[in-house]
Amino acid sequence: MHIEPIQNLISRLARLPGIGTKSAQRLAYHVLEMSDSSARELADAILSAHDKVHHCSVCGNYTDKETCAICSDNARNDNLICVVQDARDVFAIEKTREFKGKYHVLCGAISPMDGVGPDDIRIKELVDRIKKEKDTSFEVILATNPDIEGEATAVYISRLLKPLGVKVTRIAHGIPIGGNLEYVDEMTLLKAVEGRREM
Amino acid sequence: MHIEPIQNLISRLARLPGIGTKSAQRLAYHVLEMSDSSARELADAILSAHDKVHHCSVCGNYTDKETCAICSDNARNDNLICVVQDARDVFAIEKTREFKGKYHVLCGAISPMDGVGPDDIRIKELVDRIKKEKDTSFEVILATNPDIEGEATAVYISRLLKPLGVKVTRIAHGIPIGGNLEYVDEMTLLKAVEGRREM
Repeated sequence: MHIEPIQNLISRLARLPGIGTKSAQRLAYHVLEMSDSSARELADAILSAHDKVHHCSVCGNYTDKETCAICSDNARNDNLICVVQDARDVFAIEKTREFKGKYHVLCGAISPMDGVGPDDIRIKELVDRIKKEKDTSFEVILATNPDIEGEATAVYISRLLKPLGVKVTRIAHGIPIGGNLEYVDEMTLLKAVEGRREM
Repeated sequence: MHIEPIQNLISRLARLPGIGTKSAQRLAYHVLEMSDSSARELADAILSAHDKVHHCSVCGNYTDKETCAICSDNARNDNLICVVQDARDVFAIEKTREFKGKYHVLCGAISPMDGVGPDDIRIKELVDRIKKEKDTSFEVILATNPDIEGEATAVYISRLLKPLGVKVTRIAHGIPIGGNLEYVDEMTLLKAVEGRREM
C-alpha cells in the first residue's frame, strides 16, 4: 500500500523492540517530515553508536575505548565484582549511585533451551579475572535476573567460584519498595519471607 | 551516565513521537547489539525515505516520483476529490479500499493560534485544480479532522468552492462502529442525532 521507500522504513522500524506496525508507521511519517539535518543526524547517531561502541576487554561493559570508564576508575573497589547478564544492567545498578565495586558482564545467561551453555557466555573470563587477584577479601555479587536462566547461571558460577575461596553473594529477592503485599506474586512473597532479616 | 555515542543516540531517538527516554534507551541498546548489516540498513532506510519521498506535485500525497500513484491512476474518478489534512490520512482512507476518487492533501489546517492562515496550506492549489476542470458533476469531499482547526478549514474551503458550482460534502461524524452509546461524548452524540438518516 505504501511506496517502497516508506514501506522499507516501516518494516525496518517494526523490527525494533516494542515498536509495532502502527508506531513504525507513525515514526516513518515523522522521518519524512524531519529537516534534512535531523534525518542525517539520526542516521549518523545509529551508525556511530553501532560502530564505535563495543564490549570492554576487561568486564564486558559497553565502551568506546579499550577498557570502560568503570574498569579504569581507580577510586573503585577492585575486590568487589558485581556479575550481571547484560551491559544495560550495569547502567541500572549505576543509577543507584551506591555501588562502588566493579562489574563483570556475562553477555547472556545459561539457557539449555536456547542452546546457550556455560562456554557461550563470559564465565571463563570471570574465573580468569578472579584467579589473577591475590586478595582473599574478594566478594562476587551475583546479580543475574531472578528467572530460571538467571538463577541457574548464578548457581553454576557460585559452584565454580567457592572452591577458589571467594565470598559469593546473591542480590536479595523480595517485595519491591512501594509495592503492595496484596499484589505481589506468591514466589516473590515466599522469597521475601525466606530472606527476612532481624530488625 | 552513558558514554557519548550511546547518549547521543538515546537523545536523537527520544525526540521521535511516542518514544520516551526509557524506550529510547531500550532501542539504543538494541541498535548496539544489531548486526552490522541491520544497523546500516536501518540508517539507510531513514536517509533513503527522507531523501526520495516528497509531496506529489498534483495532490500533495507522498511519492518518490513526480506525481503519485493515485494521481497517475486512470481508473480513478477525476471528478471526485477527497480533501485531507495530511498525507498519512490518504493512507487511512486507502485502507478502506472503497474510495475510488482522487485526493488533495492540504499539508495542515487553518489555525490562527499557531499562525497558520489559508495561504499557508495548499488551498490555492485545490482551487486552481478545480478551476481547470470543466465537468459540472464535480464533488469535493472535505475529510479534515473533526476538531476546531479541521472544522474551520472545511468551512473556509466550502465557502470558496460553492461559488464555483462544485458540490461540496463533509464526511459524517457520529458513533464509531463497534462503539457504545454510553461511552460516546456528548458532542459526538449530538452530531450523530443531527446527522440521522432515514432507514
